[in-house]
Amino acid sequence: MVDASAQVRPGGRSAKVRAAVHRAVGELLAEEQSAEALTIPAVAARAGVHPTTVYRRWGSAAQLLNDVATSRFSDDVVVPDSGTLAGDLERWMEDVATDLADPDTLALMRATIGSGPAGGCACTEDRHKQLGAIIERERSRSGETPEVESAVDFLLGPLYYRAIFSTQPASPDWARELVTTFLTASRPRS
Amino acid sequence: MVDASAQVRPGGRSAKVRAAVHRAVGELLAEEQSAEALTIPAVAARAGVHPTTVYRRWGSAAQLLNDVATSRFSDDVVVPDSGTLAGDLERWMEDVATDLADPDTLALMRATIGSGPAGGCACTEDRHKQLGAIIERERSRSGETPEVESAVDFLLGPLYYRAIFSTQPASPDWARELVTTFLTASRPRS
Repeated sequence: MVDASAQVRPGGRSAKVRAAVHRAVGELLAEEQSAEALTIPAVAARAGVHPTTVYRRWGSAAQLLNDVATSRFSDDVVVPDSGTLAGDLERWMEDVATDLADPDTLALMRATIGSGPAGGCACTEDRHKQLGAIIERERSRSGETPEVESAVDFLLGPLYYRAIFSTQPASPDWARELVTTFLTASRPRS
Repeated sequence: MVDASAQVRPGGRSAKVRAAVHRAVGELLAEEQSAEALTIPAVAARAGVHPTTVYRRWGSAAQLLNDVATSRFSDDVVVPDSGTLAGDLERWMEDVATDLADPDTLALMRATIGSGPAGGCACTEDRHKQLGAIIERERSRSGETPEVESAVDFLLGPLYYRAIFSTQPASPDWARELVTTFLTASRPRS
Protein backbone atom coordinates (compact mmCIF):
# COMPACT_ATOMS: atom_id res chain seq x y z
CA MET A 1 0.00 0.00 0.00
CA VAL A 2 1.14 3.55 -0.79
CA ASP A 3 2.12 5.25 2.45
CA ALA A 4 0.12 8.44 2.41
CA SER A 5 0.94 9.47 5.97
CA ALA A 6 4.54 10.44 5.13
CA GLN A 7 3.35 13.18 2.83
CA VAL A 8 0.73 14.67 5.10
CA ARG A 9 1.27 18.01 6.77
CA PRO A 10 -1.74 19.48 8.55
CA GLY A 11 -3.14 22.29 6.45
CA GLY A 12 -0.83 21.46 3.53
CA ARG A 13 -2.13 20.74 0.05
CA SER A 14 -1.50 17.04 0.51
CA ALA A 15 -3.60 16.94 3.69
CA LYS A 16 -6.38 18.86 1.96
CA VAL A 17 -6.46 16.44 -0.97
CA ARG A 18 -6.52 13.50 1.44
CA ALA A 19 -9.40 14.99 3.43
CA ALA A 20 -11.39 15.78 0.26
CA VAL A 21 -10.85 12.28 -1.15
CA HIS A 22 -11.75 10.57 2.13
CA ARG A 23 -14.89 12.71 2.38
CA ALA A 24 -15.81 11.83 -1.24
CA VAL A 25 -15.51 8.11 -0.46
CA GLY A 26 -17.83 8.53 2.54
CA GLU A 27 -20.37 10.49 0.52
CA LEU A 28 -20.44 8.04 -2.38
CA LEU A 29 -20.82 5.08 -0.02
CA ALA A 30 -23.63 6.82 1.86
CA GLU A 31 -25.47 7.47 -1.40
CA GLU A 32 -24.92 4.09 -3.04
CA GLN A 33 -24.55 1.72 -0.04
CA SER A 34 -22.34 -0.38 -2.29
CA ALA A 35 -18.74 -0.52 -3.43
CA GLU A 36 -19.75 -0.77 -7.07
CA ALA A 37 -20.03 3.00 -7.47
CA LEU A 38 -16.68 3.53 -5.83
CA THR A 39 -14.39 3.92 -8.82
CA ILE A 40 -11.37 6.21 -8.76
CA PRO A 41 -12.80 8.52 -11.48
CA ALA A 42 -16.04 8.87 -9.48
CA VAL A 43 -14.17 9.62 -6.25
CA ALA A 44 -11.87 12.12 -7.99
CA ALA A 45 -14.81 13.92 -9.60
CA ARG A 46 -16.62 14.17 -6.26
CA ALA A 47 -13.47 15.38 -4.48
CA GLY A 48 -12.68 17.93 -7.19
CA VAL A 49 -9.22 16.55 -7.91
CA HIS A 50 -7.68 14.97 -10.99
CA PRO A 51 -8.01 11.15 -11.21
CA THR A 52 -4.24 10.91 -11.76
CA THR A 53 -3.69 12.44 -8.32
CA VAL A 54 -5.80 9.70 -6.75
CA TYR A 55 -4.21 6.90 -8.79
CA ARG A 56 -0.70 8.16 -7.95
CA ARG A 57 -1.38 8.40 -4.24
CA TRP A 58 -3.59 5.37 -3.57
CA GLY A 59 -2.97 3.08 -6.54
CA SER A 60 -6.43 1.50 -6.63
CA ALA A 61 -9.91 1.85 -5.23
CA ALA A 62 -9.18 -1.09 -2.90
CA GLN A 63 -6.13 0.63 -1.40
CA LEU A 64 -8.02 3.90 -1.08
CA LEU A 65 -10.85 2.12 0.77
CA ASN A 66 -8.36 0.44 3.05
CA ASP A 67 -6.78 3.82 3.86
CA VAL A 68 -10.19 5.33 4.63
CA ALA A 69 -11.11 2.33 6.80
CA THR A 70 -7.78 2.49 8.67
CA SER A 71 -8.24 6.12 9.56
CA ARG A 72 -11.97 5.70 10.28
CA PHE A 73 -11.60 2.70 12.57
CA SER A 74 -8.49 3.88 14.45
CA ASP A 75 -8.62 5.72 17.76
CA ASP A 76 -12.37 6.14 17.39
CA VAL A 77 -13.35 4.15 20.48
CA VAL A 78 -11.81 4.96 23.85
CA VAL A 79 -10.53 2.10 25.98
CA PRO A 80 -12.46 2.52 29.26
CA ASP A 81 -11.07 2.16 32.77
CA SER A 82 -14.02 1.43 35.06
CA GLY A 83 -12.09 -0.57 37.64
CA THR A 84 -13.33 -4.05 36.63
CA LEU A 85 -12.92 -6.27 33.58
CA ALA A 86 -16.68 -6.73 33.24
CA GLY A 87 -17.25 -2.98 33.43
CA ASP A 88 -14.54 -2.21 30.88
CA LEU A 89 -15.72 -4.87 28.44
CA GLU A 90 -19.38 -3.87 28.75
CA ARG A 91 -18.66 -0.20 28.15
CA TRP A 92 -16.38 -0.98 25.21
CA MET A 93 -18.74 -3.50 23.55
CA GLU A 94 -21.56 -1.00 23.88
CA ASP A 95 -19.44 1.63 22.10
CA VAL A 96 -18.38 -0.76 19.32
CA ALA A 97 -22.00 -1.87 18.81
CA THR A 98 -23.18 1.75 18.69
CA ASP A 99 -20.52 2.46 16.07
CA LEU A 100 -21.63 -0.53 13.98
CA ALA A 101 -25.25 0.60 14.14
CA ASP A 102 -24.34 3.63 12.00
CA PRO A 103 -25.29 2.79 8.37
CA ASP A 104 -22.30 4.78 7.07
CA THR A 105 -19.92 2.76 9.23
CA LEU A 106 -21.45 -0.47 8.02
CA ALA A 107 -21.32 0.62 4.37
CA LEU A 108 -17.61 1.44 4.68
CA MET A 109 -16.92 -1.87 6.40
CA ARG A 110 -18.84 -3.90 3.81
CA ALA A 111 -17.13 -2.09 0.94
CA THR A 112 -13.70 -2.63 2.51
CA ILE A 113 -14.40 -6.34 2.96
CA GLY A 114 -15.58 -6.59 -0.65
CA SER A 115 -12.65 -4.78 -2.20
CA GLY A 116 -9.81 -6.01 -0.06
CA PRO A 117 -7.72 -9.10 -0.53
CA ALA A 118 -8.57 -12.15 1.57
CA GLY A 119 -7.25 -12.25 5.13
CA GLY A 120 -7.48 -9.00 6.93
CA CYS A 121 -9.51 -5.82 6.94
CA ALA A 122 -8.47 -2.55 8.51
CA CYS A 123 -11.92 -2.45 10.13
CA THR A 124 -10.99 -4.55 13.15
CA GLU A 125 -7.22 -4.22 13.63
CA ASP A 126 -7.69 -1.48 16.20
CA ARG A 127 -10.49 -3.46 17.91
CA HIS A 128 -8.04 -6.28 18.58
CA LYS A 129 -5.54 -3.81 20.07
CA GLN A 130 -8.23 -2.26 22.27
CA LEU A 131 -9.40 -5.64 23.51
CA GLY A 132 -5.78 -6.58 24.21
CA ALA A 133 -5.32 -3.35 26.22
CA ILE A 134 -8.48 -4.02 28.29
CA ILE A 135 -7.34 -7.54 29.13
CA GLU A 136 -3.77 -6.39 29.82
CA ARG A 137 -5.11 -3.85 32.33
CA GLU A 138 -7.06 -6.61 34.08
CA ARG A 139 -3.94 -8.74 34.20
CA SER A 140 -2.17 -5.97 36.11
CA ARG A 141 -5.18 -5.75 38.48
CA SER A 142 -5.87 -9.41 39.23
CA GLY A 143 -3.30 -11.54 37.43
CA GLU A 144 -6.03 -13.80 36.02
CA THR A 145 -7.58 -13.04 32.68
CA PRO A 146 -9.20 -14.75 29.73
CA GLU A 147 -7.16 -15.11 26.53
CA VAL A 148 -7.41 -12.21 24.08
CA GLU A 149 -7.97 -14.69 21.26
CA SER A 150 -10.95 -16.21 22.97
CA ALA A 151 -12.37 -12.73 23.73
CA VAL A 152 -12.08 -11.93 20.01
CA ASP A 153 -13.93 -15.16 19.14
CA PHE A 154 -16.83 -14.78 21.57
CA LEU A 155 -17.22 -11.00 21.77
CA LEU A 156 -16.26 -9.61 18.37
CA GLY A 157 -17.36 -12.79 16.54
CA PRO A 158 -21.08 -12.60 17.37
CA LEU A 159 -21.11 -8.79 17.17
CA TYR A 160 -19.65 -8.49 13.67
CA TYR A 161 -21.54 -11.56 12.45
CA ARG A 162 -24.83 -9.93 13.38
CA ALA A 163 -23.80 -6.60 11.89
CA ILE A 164 -22.89 -8.17 8.55
CA PHE A 165 -25.04 -11.26 8.08
CA SER A 166 -28.00 -11.22 10.37
CA THR A 167 -31.37 -9.56 10.35
CA GLN A 168 -31.16 -9.57 14.17
CA PRO A 169 -30.06 -6.18 15.46
CA ALA A 170 -26.59 -6.01 17.02
CA SER A 171 -27.89 -3.73 19.75
CA PRO A 172 -25.70 -2.20 22.48
CA ASP A 173 -27.80 -4.00 25.16
CA TRP A 174 -27.29 -7.36 23.53
CA ALA A 175 -23.56 -6.60 23.08
CA ARG A 176 -23.30 -6.01 26.84
CA GLU A 177 -24.98 -9.36 27.50
CA LEU A 178 -22.33 -11.09 25.38
CA VAL A 179 -19.79 -9.96 27.98
CA THR A 180 -21.71 -11.67 30.79
CA THR A 181 -21.97 -14.91 28.82
CA PHE A 182 -18.29 -14.76 27.88
CA LEU A 183 -17.04 -14.08 31.42
CA THR A 184 -19.29 -16.80 32.88
CA ALA A 185 -18.06 -19.34 30.31
CA SER A 186 -14.42 -18.32 30.90
CA ARG A 187 -14.61 -18.94 34.68
CA PRO A 188 -13.28 -22.36 35.66
CA ARG A 189 -16.15 -24.71 36.62
CA SER A 190 -16.02 -26.08 40.13
CA MET B 1 -34.37 -9.08 -7.18
CA VAL B 2 -35.18 -10.53 -10.57
CA ASP B 3 -36.48 -14.07 -10.16
CA ALA B 4 -34.29 -16.09 -12.48
CA SER B 5 -35.49 -19.50 -11.30
CA ALA B 6 -38.87 -19.24 -13.00
CA GLN B 7 -37.21 -19.09 -16.41
CA VAL B 8 -34.83 -22.00 -15.95
CA ARG B 9 -35.39 -25.31 -17.71
CA PRO B 10 -32.56 -27.83 -17.48
CA GLY B 11 -30.73 -27.95 -20.79
CA GLY B 12 -32.68 -24.98 -22.16
CA ARG B 13 -31.00 -21.86 -23.50
CA SER B 14 -31.91 -19.97 -20.35
CA ALA B 15 -30.23 -22.58 -18.14
CA LYS B 16 -27.13 -22.53 -20.34
CA VAL B 17 -26.85 -18.74 -20.13
CA ARG B 18 -27.27 -18.90 -16.37
CA ALA B 19 -24.58 -21.56 -16.02
CA ALA B 20 -22.16 -19.62 -18.27
CA VAL B 21 -22.74 -16.37 -16.38
CA HIS B 22 -22.36 -18.01 -12.97
CA ARG B 23 -19.15 -19.68 -14.14
CA ALA B 24 -17.84 -16.35 -15.46
CA VAL B 25 -18.46 -14.71 -12.07
CA GLY B 26 -16.51 -17.48 -10.34
CA GLU B 27 -13.61 -17.22 -12.77
CA LEU B 28 -13.34 -13.44 -12.53
CA LEU B 29 -13.45 -13.56 -8.72
CA ALA B 30 -10.80 -16.28 -8.64
CA GLU B 31 -8.53 -14.19 -10.84
CA GLU B 32 -9.07 -10.82 -9.20
CA GLN B 33 -10.01 -11.75 -5.61
CA SER B 34 -12.02 -8.55 -5.54
CA ALA B 35 -15.45 -7.34 -6.55
CA GLU B 36 -14.01 -4.36 -8.41
CA ALA B 37 -13.44 -6.35 -11.59
CA LEU B 38 -16.94 -7.73 -11.47
CA THR B 39 -18.80 -5.45 -13.83
CA ILE B 40 -21.65 -6.67 -16.02
CA PRO B 41 -19.75 -5.99 -19.27
CA ALA B 42 -16.77 -7.99 -17.97
CA VAL B 43 -18.97 -10.89 -16.87
CA ALA B 44 -20.88 -10.88 -20.18
CA ALA B 45 -17.65 -10.87 -22.21
CA ARG B 46 -16.28 -13.80 -20.21
CA ALA B 47 -19.54 -15.74 -20.50
CA GLY B 48 -19.82 -15.07 -24.24
CA VAL B 49 -23.24 -13.44 -23.97
CA HIS B 50 -24.48 -9.94 -24.76
CA PRO B 51 -24.35 -7.49 -21.81
CA THR B 52 -28.03 -6.68 -22.41
CA THR B 53 -28.91 -10.31 -21.65
CA VAL B 54 -27.19 -10.04 -18.29
CA TYR B 55 -28.70 -6.62 -17.48
CA ARG B 56 -32.18 -7.83 -18.41
CA ARG B 57 -31.97 -10.97 -16.33
CA TRP B 58 -30.06 -9.83 -13.23
CA GLY B 59 -30.45 -6.03 -13.26
CA SER B 60 -27.11 -5.23 -11.62
CA ALA B 61 -23.81 -6.78 -10.63
CA ALA B 62 -25.01 -6.81 -7.01
CA GLN B 63 -28.11 -8.85 -7.87
CA LEU B 64 -26.08 -11.19 -10.04
CA LEU B 65 -23.62 -11.76 -7.18
CA ASN B 66 -26.49 -12.42 -4.80
CA ASP B 67 -27.95 -15.00 -7.20
CA VAL B 68 -24.57 -16.74 -7.52
CA ALA B 69 -24.13 -16.72 -3.73
CA THR B 70 -27.64 -18.08 -3.17
CA SER B 71 -27.07 -21.03 -5.47
CA ARG B 72 -23.48 -21.57 -4.25
CA PHE B 73 -24.35 -21.56 -0.55
CA SER B 74 -27.58 -23.57 -0.77
CA ASP B 75 -27.76 -27.32 -0.22
CA ASP B 76 -23.96 -27.50 -0.31
CA VAL B 77 -23.49 -28.82 3.22
CA VAL B 78 -25.39 -31.91 4.38
CA VAL B 79 -27.09 -31.81 7.78
CA PRO B 80 -25.57 -34.78 9.60
CA ASP B 81 -27.41 -37.27 11.82
CA SER B 82 -24.82 -38.83 14.13
CA GLY B 83 -27.17 -39.56 17.00
CA THR B 84 -26.05 -36.74 19.32
CA LEU B 85 -26.23 -32.94 19.24
CA ALA B 86 -22.48 -32.63 19.88
CA GLY B 87 -21.70 -35.08 17.08
CA ASP B 88 -24.02 -33.35 14.61
CA LEU B 89 -22.72 -29.87 15.42
CA GLU B 90 -19.07 -30.94 15.26
CA ARG B 91 -19.47 -32.64 11.90
CA TRP B 92 -21.40 -29.70 10.51
CA MET B 93 -19.02 -27.01 11.80
CA GLU B 94 -16.10 -28.95 10.37
CA ASP B 95 -17.81 -28.98 6.96
CA VAL B 96 -18.67 -25.28 7.07
CA ALA B 97 -15.10 -24.42 8.11
CA THR B 98 -13.69 -26.57 5.31
CA ASP B 99 -15.94 -24.77 2.85
CA LEU B 100 -14.79 -21.36 4.14
CA ALA B 101 -11.14 -22.39 3.80
CA ASP B 102 -11.56 -22.47 0.00
CA PRO B 103 -10.22 -19.13 -1.38
CA ASP B 104 -12.90 -19.11 -4.11
CA THR B 105 -15.67 -19.47 -1.51
CA LEU B 106 -14.20 -16.64 0.53
CA ALA B 107 -13.80 -14.40 -2.53
CA LEU B 108 -17.46 -14.90 -3.45
CA MET B 109 -18.57 -14.23 0.11
CA ARG B 110 -16.47 -11.05 0.42
CA ALA B 111 -17.69 -9.78 -2.94
CA THR B 112 -21.32 -10.47 -2.01
CA ILE B 113 -20.92 -8.64 1.30
CA GLY B 114 -19.30 -5.70 -0.50
CA SER B 115 -21.87 -5.36 -3.24
CA GLY B 116 -25.05 -6.15 -1.35
CA PRO B 117 -27.26 -3.76 0.54
CA ALA B 118 -26.88 -3.60 4.31
CA GLY B 119 -28.64 -6.29 6.36
CA GLY B 120 -28.43 -9.74 4.87
CA CYS B 121 -26.22 -11.80 2.63
CA ALA B 122 -27.25 -14.97 0.84
CA CYS B 123 -24.03 -16.53 2.15
CA THR B 124 -25.46 -17.60 5.49
CA GLU B 125 -29.24 -17.95 5.04
CA ASP B 126 -28.92 -21.68 4.45
CA ARG B 127 -26.49 -22.03 7.37
CA HIS B 128 -29.18 -20.71 9.70
CA LYS B 129 -31.68 -23.22 8.34
CA GLN B 130 -29.20 -26.08 8.73
CA LEU B 131 -28.40 -25.09 12.30
CA GLY B 132 -32.13 -24.86 13.00
CA ALA B 133 -32.63 -28.38 11.58
CA ILE B 134 -29.82 -29.81 13.73
CA ILE B 135 -31.27 -28.28 16.88
CA GLU B 136 -34.81 -29.31 15.93
CA ARG B 137 -33.65 -32.92 15.57
CA GLU B 138 -32.09 -32.77 19.05
CA ARG B 139 -35.35 -31.38 20.42
CA SER B 140 -37.15 -34.48 19.13
CA ARG B 141 -34.46 -36.67 20.75
CA SER B 142 -34.09 -35.09 24.18
CA GLY B 143 -36.55 -32.22 24.46
CA GLU B 144 -33.81 -29.92 25.77
CA THR B 145 -31.82 -27.81 23.38
CA PRO B 146 -29.95 -24.53 23.22
CA GLU B 147 -31.59 -21.65 21.35
CA VAL B 148 -30.85 -21.45 17.61
CA GLU B 149 -30.11 -17.74 17.99
CA SER B 150 -27.46 -18.39 20.59
CA ALA B 151 -25.94 -21.17 18.45
CA VAL B 152 -25.71 -18.68 15.58
CA ASP B 153 -23.97 -16.16 17.86
CA PHE B 154 -21.38 -18.50 19.36
CA LEU B 155 -20.77 -20.96 16.52
CA LEU B 156 -21.22 -19.03 13.26
CA GLY B 157 -20.11 -15.73 14.85
CA PRO B 158 -16.51 -16.75 15.67
CA LEU B 159 -16.22 -18.88 12.51
CA TYR B 160 -17.20 -16.19 10.03
CA TYR B 161 -15.37 -13.49 11.97
CA ARG B 162 -12.11 -15.41 11.65
CA ALA B 163 -12.73 -16.18 7.99
CA ILE B 164 -13.32 -12.52 7.14
CA PHE B 165 -11.33 -10.42 9.60
CA SER B 166 -8.68 -12.44 11.30
CA THR B 167 -5.24 -13.63 10.40
CA GLN B 168 -5.93 -16.64 12.65
CA PRO B 169 -6.96 -19.65 10.58
CA ALA B 170 -10.60 -20.77 10.93
CA SER B 171 -9.50 -24.41 10.89
CA PRO B 172 -11.92 -27.37 11.03
CA ASP B 173 -10.29 -28.53 14.32
CA TRP B 174 -10.81 -25.18 15.96
CA ALA B 175 -14.38 -25.05 14.60
CA ARG B 176 -15.09 -28.37 16.33
CA GLU B 177 -13.72 -26.97 19.60
CA LEU B 178 -16.19 -24.09 19.38
CA VAL B 179 -18.96 -26.68 19.69
CA THR B 180 -17.51 -28.00 22.97
CA THR B 181 -17.21 -24.49 24.40
CA PHE B 182 -20.72 -23.61 23.28
CA LEU B 183 -22.37 -26.75 24.67
CA THR B 184 -20.48 -26.42 27.98
CA ALA B 185 -21.53 -22.77 28.31
CA SER B 186 -25.15 -23.62 27.41
CA ARG B 187 -25.50 -26.28 30.14
CA PRO B 188 -27.13 -24.94 33.28
CA ARG B 189 -24.55 -24.52 36.06
CA SER B 190 -25.18 -26.50 39.19
